[in-house]
Amino acid sequence: MEKLLQNIINECYPYIKNGEVATYIPELAKADKNEFGICTASHGEGINGVGDYKKSFTMQSIAKTVILLRALEDKGEEGVRRLVGVEATGKPFDAFNYSDQALKSEHINPMINAGAIALCTLIDGKTYQEKFQRLLDLTRKIAGNPSLDIDEDVYLSEKATGNKNRALTYMLKAYGIINEDAEEVLDCYFRACSIKVTSVDLAKIAFVLANRGMDTLSGKQIFDKNHAKYINAVLMTCGMYDGSGEFAVTVGVPAKSGVGGGIMAVVPGRMGIGIYSPALDSKGNSCAGIKALELLSKELELSIF
Amino acid sequence: MEKLLQNIINECYPYIKNGEVATYIPELAKADKNEFGICTASHGEGINGVGDYKKSFTMQSIAKTVILLRALEDKGEEGVRRLVGVEATGKPFDAFNYSDQALKSEHINPMINAGAIALCTLIDGKTYQEKFQRLLDLTRKIAGNPSLDIDEDVYLSEKATGNKNRALTYMLKAYGIINEDAEEVLDCYFRACSIKVTSVDLAKIAFVLANRGMDTLSGKQIFDKNHAKYINAVLMTCGMYDGSGEFAVTVGVPAKSGVGGGIMAVVPGRMGIGIYSPALDSKGNSCAGIKALELLSKELELSIF
Amino acid sequence: MEKLLQNIINECYPYIKNGEVATYIPELAKADKNEFGICTASHGEGINGVGDYKKSFTMQSIAKTVILLRALEDKGEEGVRRLVGVEATGKPFDAFNYSDQALKSEHINPMINAGAIALCTLIDGKTYQEKFQRLLDLTRKIAGNPSLDIDEDVYLSEKATGNKNRALTYMLKAYGIINEDAEEVLDCYFRACSIKVTSVDLAKIAFVLANRGMDTLSGKQIFDKNHAKYINAVLMTCGMYDGSGEFAVTVGVPAKSGVGGGIMAVVPGRMGIGIYSPALDSKGNSCAGIKALELLSKELELSIF
Amino acid sequence: MEKLLQNIINECYPYIKNGEVATYIPELAKADKNEFGICTASHGEGINGVGDYKKSFTMQSIAKTVILLRALEDKGEEGVRRLVGVEATGKPFDAFNYSDQALKSEHINPMINAGAIALCTLIDGKTYQEKFQRLLDLTRKIAGNPSLDIDEDVYLSEKATGNKNRALTYMLKAYGIINEDAEEVLDCYFRACSIKVTSVDLAKIAFVLANRGMDTLSGKQIFDKNHAKYINAVLMTCGMYDGSGEFAVTVGVPAKSGVGGGIMAVVPGRMGIGIYSPALDSKGNSCAGIKALELLSKELELSIF
Repeated sequence: MEKLLQNIINECYPYIKNGEVATYIPELAKADKNEFGICTASHGEGINGVGDYKKSFTMQSIAKTVILLRALEDKGEEGVRRLVGVEATGKPFDAFNYSDQALKSEHINPMINAGAIALCTLIDGKTYQEKFQRLLDLTRKIAGNPSLDIDEDVYLSEKATGNKNRALTYMLKAYGIINEDAEEVLDCYFRACSIKVTSVDLAKIAFVLANRGMDTLSGKQIFDKNHAKYINAVLMTCGMYDGSGEFAVTVGVPAKSGVGGGIMAVVPGRMGIGIYSPALDSKGNSCAGIKALELLSKELELSIF
Repeated sequence: MEKLLQNIINECYPYIKNGEVATYIPELAKADKNEFGICTASHGEGINGVGDYKKSFTMQSIAKTVILLRALEDKGEEGVRRLVGVEATGKPFDAFNYSDQALKSEHINPMINAGAIALCTLIDGKTYQEKFQRLLDLTRKIAGNPSLDIDEDVYLSEKATGNKNRALTYMLKAYGIINEDAEEVLDCYFRACSIKVTSVDLAKIAFVLANRGMDTLSGKQIFDKNHAKYINAVLMTCGMYDGSGEFAVTVGVPAKSGVGGGIMAVVPGRMGIGIYSPALDSKGNSCAGIKALELLSKELELSIF
Repeated sequence: MEKLLQNIINECYPYIKNGEVATYIPELAKADKNEFGICTASHGEGINGVGDYKKSFTMQSIAKTVILLRALEDKGEEGVRRLVGVEATGKPFDAFNYSDQALKSEHINPMINAGAIALCTLIDGKTYQEKFQRLLDLTRKIAGNPSLDIDEDVYLSEKATGNKNRALTYMLKAYGIINEDAEEVLDCYFRACSIKVTSVDLAKIAFVLANRGMDTLSGKQIFDKNHAKYINAVLMTCGMYDGSGEFAVTVGVPAKSGVGGGIMAVVPGRMGIGIYSPALDSKGNSCAGIKALELLSKELELSIF
Repeated sequence: MEKLLQNIINECYPYIKNGEVATYIPELAKADKNEFGICTASHGEGINGVGDYKKSFTMQSIAKTVILLRALEDKGEEGVRRLVGVEATGKPFDAFNYSDQALKSEHINPMINAGAIALCTLIDGKTYQEKFQRLLDLTRKIAGNPSLDIDEDVYLSEKATGNKNRALTYMLKAYGIINEDAEEVLDCYFRACSIKVTSVDLAKIAFVLANRGMDTLSGKQIFDKNHAKYINAVLMTCGMYDGSGEFAVTVGVPAKSGVGGGIMAVVPGRMGIGIYSPALDSKGNSCAGIKALELLSKELELSIF
């Protein structure tokens, strides 16, 4: 496996030059675009990593996956669906005139910022500090890594510059989708995006999702298997931004990317994959990372279709 | 004139029942939907008012007119155009995905909330308190009414509940259209919307716009005549929300309505009109007020077309 | 007047190089982008033309003005409004999914292709040949030019390549807005767009609209004055494509442009203006033509605002 | 298996009353909304049908699946991708103004009408009669049913009333996406939609897709396994109209519905399912059919996530 992964890194390395590191958050712009690591977790083969697979980076949008899981565990499928829809085809939303149509739950989904922000309000906990702690604890538990924590600099950088997310949050409030204090909800969301992981952590989280909530090491069911199916389905249809259809055709497994350069891919019943390569294409997905998954899918017949 | 106005009020009174007072701000919901007043200011005829023309109400969106004027006077046409466009046909703007197209100045105009909020940043003044004071002073001067002031309850109500405007402001910041502190800019905008006027005040402001900035009483030019043309043109194409085209056909003069129930209409070279009737149609325009302007326009041949 | 017009042509000539002749219809691409003519018709001054003001070109979208007039005269304001709306802000229309919202009359206006095509069905006449003849006769009458006719090559070129208009027509049929044979309706529309005029013809048509339907030479009312107001109002809010707001601010009179390079401008009560200069900007408006109207408006204080 | 299917029909029968048969084509309106049949094809269990599973109906949008397959087989993945994109999130397309953005291949996908119509042009064949024959032959081959043919009445009904599809086809021509004669392309598409099948046929087609192109009876590979993966991926992300996300979560397998009342579901590696129940929900999907798939998925753990 390690040999295969190394070959893939070698073959995909040139794709790095097609992308650029994210710059919309000052801290993210500091990433080294030449870093590239892959890690897999699978039955029989265990954990295999090559390249910069021990390098840490922030989860960014990949955190939407654990936010969704935390909300599902705390409020159930019905509770989550009532607040946030699941369609990728939500109509654009024109916020600029008095007579505009309302923003509704069915216009958002858990993998877009507005949806993930809304889901933060569903996490159990008296305070937002407590809510975030429960989210972090869950992430640590699935990753099997109690030392996971946030990158304070990235968190503060996002908090300082996250005006688009601020705008979305006030829009959610304006249409009564959420009622909580905007800055508190955002703080939880910004912290979640700033959780620092390695490709190993992502591979392990993905592997638990691939096994429908079961930790194969301990044999324990960490979370409801239906919640794993829910999450994998949502990742399939809208996990890779506007490139989700292309990804379904060329790779064929549920996955989530983040602008920090990570991709987490779930091969149901077989494997979890974590990739790090921070040079992004115009849709916000890691260039070399997507190519690597394409080759890996062909080589190992990973497509679920 | 007063007899004509009284006939019009009588004829249009039944249209009140087609509308409802605005409820999105708790304070506005307290308005009495049966109130109805008209006032005109014209050459020769002077000031004529009937019905509840002395009743005061908040300007709401009508304040966009003076915000635009204040910005034009402080930064000139070029300065204003650089920040805020003038087309009614701005494309809807989808703020929910990473890869969205940017929000640009050409997508907004001075008569939509986002445009008016952006224009507040162009007002001269070291602090937002000073900026607002200069806006209020200008309003008092054009209305010839030094006692104009804000309705504190409406202001606080808007400030507490104005999440859509808050969302728009952060969107403007997210796309670099404005860079100032969102809450300070919004405070200026909310105060402007809360300025309390009567139909007389609106008629007088409109009359100065009709005379291209000249105060006919004193014979003094209060502001640049080109700024009056700029404002009247913008009112014509987008002053009446999504009903601007209909209004151009049926009434045919520049006008601006507010959800407080007021309409201010400018008959270039001839007349200023102020109307108050807080029962609104689905587009946010006063039902009886629009009908009254239609009749008045037919009766006095006011259409500029 | 002729001296003023000549000065304006001289000053605006350099703007030609900012634009390109329309190429979407092969025949239009044959236009000479260096041609530039202006003609005015006004009280006292009569007809004044300079430059290529005797050069003929096809009306293209300017024909929408006479289509609207013909429909108004045949079916009245109510009949026209029932079929075609008057707002510039019609929402985009997504035609690609089963569950799409319907296309409604309020989404179109007489100055966009779909609206003008729909209006062709309102013209009286047993056959479409007869309908078009009545449209042509009306155009000849207002222009005072019985020799007006279509440019057969442009007509055939549009008919052969007009697939976007064909698409719009079938969309109108799909949503029950029109029920007639698509190709017959389109034939009428393509013929209308192909009517050949000079700047003199446009100036004269505009002058009748400026005088609310009265032919000042004969003193005869050619059409209902309310229909002139209706048309002028529609031209003001959506006559210049997505540049209507800008045009209202900088020029301030109702006008209609065509991709053939013509602009027809109506100065209510004072003047009709016809311009020809086929180099178009990205919005489809004549570059030098718009600049010329801007200067003329400043020089003669033409703005109605 | 048959007992399970019968239980499911019994349990889902009440959902029929939530929907209505399609009425936009007169012939479809003649369907009996109380009919309900299910058929499965699976390894070991063979073919099992209950209810009205022998009842025939037209494929409608389900034919998009075989159109896509025919195009893939004739032109390969690259040829298909060049013409028609794969994202569900294509932006709405505003066709009503001169300056509109162009329609591009990336705005369409094989499961929306515009995409499927475009794909008809990729089928090999000198004439459209030949192209359609090759499409029909392929459908017969995968279904293992040489007697499949079109429903002449439905075909003529669609041809006579299909103005929305006509509009889409001319739009594709207007933007140079296709260059062929619109009526010929449409004729091929309308014929494809009118192919008459039973739930058995759909189950068998789906079973071949589930086995990645292999006919398990004969052991022959009927088509390229990569094309099966391509199709299944596209069905997953956009096969169920605007309900694709919901369907992924609740059922979790690739599927395609048609307004004729059919649903074809592919369980990779395991099973093909054909359902018929013509009462549709507001998104155009069979009400009872979707509910039946939900129960079947739970009962047999069919979700691929």
